[in-house]
Amino acid sequence: MKRIFLIVGHRVRTDGKFNLNDLCGSTGRLDILLRVINSVFLLSNGLRKDAELFLVLKGPPDPPVTIHLIGSELKYLNPDERSTGALIRQALMTQRKPGQEIRSTPGIYVSDLDYRDVLVRLSSDRKPVYLHEKGTPIQTTPIPDPGNVFFVLGDQFDLNDDEEVMLQDPIFISLGPNILHTDHCVVLIQNEMDRRYENENAMDSPE
Amino acid sequence: MKRIFLIVGHRVRTDGKFNLNDLCGSTGRLDILLRVINSVFLLSNGLRKDAELFLVLKGPPDPPVTIHLIGSELKYLNPDERSTGALIRQALMTQRKPGQEIRSTPGIYVSDLDYRDVLVRLSSDRKPVYLHEKGTPIQTTPIPDPGNVFFVLGDQFDLNDDEEVMLQDPIFISLGPNILHTDHCVVLIQNEMDRRYENENAMDSPE
Repeated sequence: MKRIFLIVGHRVRTDGKFNLNDLCGSTGRLDILLRVINSVFLLSNGLRKDAELFLVLKGPPDPPVTIHLIGSELKYLNPDERSTGALIRQALMTQRKPGQEIRSTPGIYVSDLDYRDVLVRLSSDRKPVYLHEKGTPIQTTPIPDPGNVFFVLGDQFDLNDDEEVMLQDPIFISLGPNILHTDHCVVLIQNEMDRRYENENAMDSPE
Repeated sequence: MKRIFLIVGHRVRTDGKFNLNDLCGSTGRLDILLRVINSVFLLSNGLRKDAELFLVLKGPPDPPVTIHLIGSELKYLNPDERSTGALIRQALMTQRKPGQEIRSTPGIYVSDLDYRDVLVRLSSDRKPVYLHEKGTPIQTTPIPDPGNVFFVLGDQFDLNDDEEVMLQDPIFISLGPNILHTDHCVVLIQNEMDRRYENENAMDSPE
């Protein structure tokens, strides 16, 4: 079952004109999203081919840009920030066409889809799971099969009111007493799904 | 209660002669340890002042080198790999003195202590908790107060037999069905301790 994540980069630059030696300062905090890519896709011994990630970028000069990463097609993804930054820069420098996803490198697609477009696309057969301080602990929250949900997180900013209100009937979850970086939140969600889904499989099997 | 982590970087270079633009290729995978530093210390809104980390480096040209990071003293720590790489490079370029920890920047100390030295120091009042495939799930493993243990992990390589046998009476834990990068393992351990310790606090308090 595919696990889908949707992350909003509220100020991340939407052109590729940034310096790979200053991913923190020159990109509107693309560095956060690069670490999210690592957390969504990378295992110690390979890629999570069942994972998919939508990064909705809202920063200057040309928002919105959505970068869509598909685990089953991804190549050239390494764990370090700089090489992933180079892949995303290449995606941002790819010529976009209205309403279309254009492939920049294997498994990485770029488009002018906005947050609402992505929500509409995902909501047709999935329910949003939203990390929020009023959520219930993920460990005790009933979550349908990961194939029937998508996980929504902000970057260093929470979703704003407009973004929140567009989520239809979300499942609110929390991860613990501390406020964590988004990439750390993704690690925790992936692990919870790993363990829960393994158990479900185990229960389903006759032995 | 302090939370202490000990990570072995089996091939990480022990001089500062590497390129910050190639942290993955030129350092013996220091990049993994940089992400571990992020996971050990960084919350979204600040530093974990109760955390402490020993990085034992065994790569060329001058092993062993131990870098000791102390959360309550740390400054200038940002979440991106490159800036943390610069701090560690500075530590590695600091002149070492036999058997002494030398401060390179606030909260970062460098020495020629080896793995055994660090174990002896930590084992005087703490028990090792060791991530291993034969471990029991951390969620159901009784772990004394984090103040009475230290967490031991390898980098991209497991501890070797010599390193394992030096752990005195370790508690073996596992984190889930997938093999994860070390920095992701640390995120999971920190979160488990956050939630468990909060609960213990809650149970201890009269209300």
